[in-house]
Amino acid sequence: MTGVLYGVGLGPGDPDLMTLRAHRLISGARVVAYPALAGGESFARAIAADAIAPGTREIVMDVPMTTARAPAQTAYDKGAREIAVALEAGEDVVCLCEGDPFFYGSFMYLFARLKDRFNVQVIPGVTSITACAARAGLPLAARNERLTVLPGPLPEAELRARIEGAESVAIMKVGRHLPKIRAVIDTLGLTEHAVYIERASLPQEVVCPLAEAPTNAPYFSMILLTKGADPWL
Amino acid sequence: MTGVLYGVGLGPGDPDLMTLRAHRLISGARVVAYPALAGGESFARAIAADAIAPGTREIVMDVPMTTARAPAQTAYDKGAREIAVALEAGEDVVCLCEGDPFFYGSFMYLFARLKDRFNVQVIPGVTSITACAARAGLPLAARNERLTVLPGPLPEAELRARIEGAESVAIMKVGRHLPKIRAVIDTLGLTEHAVYIERASLPQEVVCPLAEAPTNAPYFSMILLTKGADPWL
Repeated sequence: MTGVLYGVGLGPGDPDLMTLRAHRLISGARVVAYPALAGGESFARAIAADAIAPGTREIVMDVPMTTARAPAQTAYDKGAREIAVALEAGEDVVCLCEGDPFFYGSFMYLFARLKDRFNVQVIPGVTSITACAARAGLPLAARNERLTVLPGPLPEAELRARIEGAESVAIMKVGRHLPKIRAVIDTLGLTEHAVYIERASLPQEVVCPLAEAPTNAPYFSMILLTKGADPWL
Repeated sequence: MTGVLYGVGLGPGDPDLMTLRAHRLISGARVVAYPALAGGESFARAIAADAIAPGTREIVMDVPMTTARAPAQTAYDKGAREIAVALEAGEDVVCLCEGDPFFYGSFMYLFARLKDRFNVQVIPGVTSITACAARAGLPLAARNERLTVLPGPLPEAELRARIEGAESVAIMKVGRHLPKIRAVIDTLGLTEHAVYIERASLPQEVVCPLAEAPTNAPYFSMILLTKGADPWL
């Protein structure tokens, strides 16, 4: 009997926003796996830390910090091989994923490599989008409104076209793209409708109007923009 | 001291997909509130049932089954008044919300009515979108991909334009709009990329290619469409 690979969403950062199932799977795990950035801390492991039992084996995937694809893919190749050995030996492996595994998550790289050979179960998690909306007190979408999710690294012209054609917009992974995104939103005359959020649900959380956003935004930052009619009716 | 109103996301249906915080707030609640459709069952209450302690007071908002706005708004007016009385008396009220309170959730109607007078805290939940993706084994968005969320009741021409211009698409609230949506996706030649899911995470869950979808879809059904390049690389 081979083991089961669980891709477990941990939510946006506050361990209290983990699901009951995520918590149970992690607490009972004998093997956990997670990515860590360039030999540094793993955000996923930090969220799950209190749930990981002493003696649990940890498979760490060191993902290099670069926008080039090949080095990261090599890290996932290596991680997938190590996970496969554990699964072949009949051990279940719980892979820790920030947010939701299938929503801009790196778990899909492991899923791609292992889904045809093993039983892979995905446990959804709270995404940063609804966590940010909750913290900003900003309903995202109601009734027949449309919501568009855009990654901040998109080119300026595409961001502009997409924001123009949408109602509610969530812009993920703002980070160093903040000046470009602010300029686009300014040009469209929408700055007063935009909220900036970084590290939602964590102690260092920041929530403010986009006009007051800090100059340097971390990777885990987001802009929410709602253009619809007053959502309060 | 007035009480705090908590808008608590319960996730897509499986009680195990509630967050730890949601579970703790509900278990400790002395007053819960929730909508019920036209005097019938409340899906939100059903999800939370095992966490509600005996003796908890329940404020039920009977929402009439109609697409007209006024009757539903009257129900939320009445519910908000009843909740306000409890808050004024210093009691906390935990409002039970399917999915996430700010993602196509009716909690925003209560939020609109009470946020200026009371302390309102929103606890995000797992949305049906990532729950459906998890059950369908379908990564939603990676890297710089865009995701568009569309409600099924939108007019045909708008659905077509929106689907055409998007990469990953999630179409919510399919229900009786299924034939119209299928026709649009067929015309665009995208049926083979589309997955149909109903009642994700519940025992009666259905997951199948859109081409094999049942004729009658319940309100809680969704179509996921990913047009991007092979997401497995």
